[in-house]
Amino acid sequence: MNGSFSQGFRDDLARLMRWRRDVRRFRSDAVEAAVLDRCLSAFRLAPSVGLSEPWRLIRVESPTCRDAVIANFAAANAQALSSYAGDKARLYAGLKLSGMREAPVHLAVFCDDATPKGAGLGAGTMPEARAYSVVGAITLFWLAARAEGLGVGWVSILDPVRLCADLDVPDGWGFIGYLCVGWPEADHDTPELERAGWEMRARDLWMERR
Amino acid sequence: MNGSFSQGFRDDLARLMRWRRDVRRFRSDAVEAAVLDRCLSAFRLAPSVGLSEPWRLIRVESPTCRDAVIANFAAANAQALSSYAGDKARLYAGLKLSGMREAPVHLAVFCDDATPKGAGLGAGTMPEARAYSVVGAITLFWLAARAEGLGVGWVSILDPVRLCADLDVPDGWGFIGYLCVGWPEADHDTPELERAGWEMRARDLWMERR
Repeated sequence: MNGSFSQGFRDDLARLMRWRRDVRRFRSDAVEAAVLDRCLSAFRLAPSVGLSEPWRLIRVESPTCRDAVIANFAAANAQALSSYAGDKARLYAGLKLSGMREAPVHLAVFCDDATPKGAGLGAGTMPEARAYSVVGAITLFWLAARAEGLGVGWVSILDPVRLCADLDVPDGWGFIGYLCVGWPEADHDTPELERAGWEMRARDLWMERR
Repeated sequence: MNGSFSQGFRDDLARLMRWRRDVRRFRSDAVEAAVLDRCLSAFRLAPSVGLSEPWRLIRVESPTCRDAVIANFAAANAQALSSYAGDKARLYAGLKLSGMREAPVHLAVFCDDATPKGAGLGAGTMPEARAYSVVGAITLFWLAARAEGLGVGWVSILDPVRLCADLDVPDGWGFIGYLCVGWPEADHDTPELERAGWEMRARDLWMERR
């Protein structure tokens, strides 16, 4: 066990990042518990401000809760659609922006801003660093899932206040993202929004010097 | 080029996550441009809400700007220290929380919340999803760097308003994090805060069902 990595591994890591997608089209077959557990173990290896490890996961399984989240998405998505006009509205209306109905695994991810863990280190001037820690953990999970062939779709078209109420989460938790997890219908090395004509990836990284 | 990955790759990916550290102890020798560029290319593969790709990087090189950021950190860190008492204060005072003076590469990372890219898709109810996209990109960069043997340290003990002013960034940019990058003095598979006795990693992932 050591911290050195080969060129072959680096090439595969870049390939993993290239094939990681935000997936909205899932097969409905189950994800074995052992596979999901392996992916979830990535959370425990994530960086967190002050070692606060503020990630809190709720696995949403009951029809009542799933229906509430799906209705939340439907309302937020209808509101979003109404903000576009003309061709953009038509294009938006045709996009599939969530695989909630098909994905076998639903994970709602929160940040516990009241955690005593880490004693606030690193979060004095930037309390949002706790939420950022949760996002980093989700990102590691996303890569681990893709390496198993699993797709992850991050849904942000949700009213976070309503979601926290519907899932009855403790006060002081902030909603970070809702993850749909399952076997993708197909693998792609380009984003679905690019294939659908919504937006293109930039060619260059934006960087200036000071 | 395909999207399948071997068990050997998955094992190495888990090992990479285990050896990724928040590094504050750097050797001062330079990082070759080609190595840094390879790591930075991970940004371009990151997920972003609506394909907005809102990450903006400033490479901080001038002594004037570096001194301003180091002074910013010193002030925020002194303020943080004053919030602890007794043993915790003594322990905090002994921690090394930034490698800014030694790290050859400094990257200030921002989120452009005013970008037209992506046309706002996915960020209606949760505009913070743009900042989260930037965090995801930093996380991919962090892994790519570690796979090259490079250390990354994320500094959040900074006044973001002062930092944006000192680096003269455009209105509408939000500061996400300040990254110190360089060759680490040593590799470790445990967090420095754990080795220093500040906090321990949790054994289990926090998860409930609904």
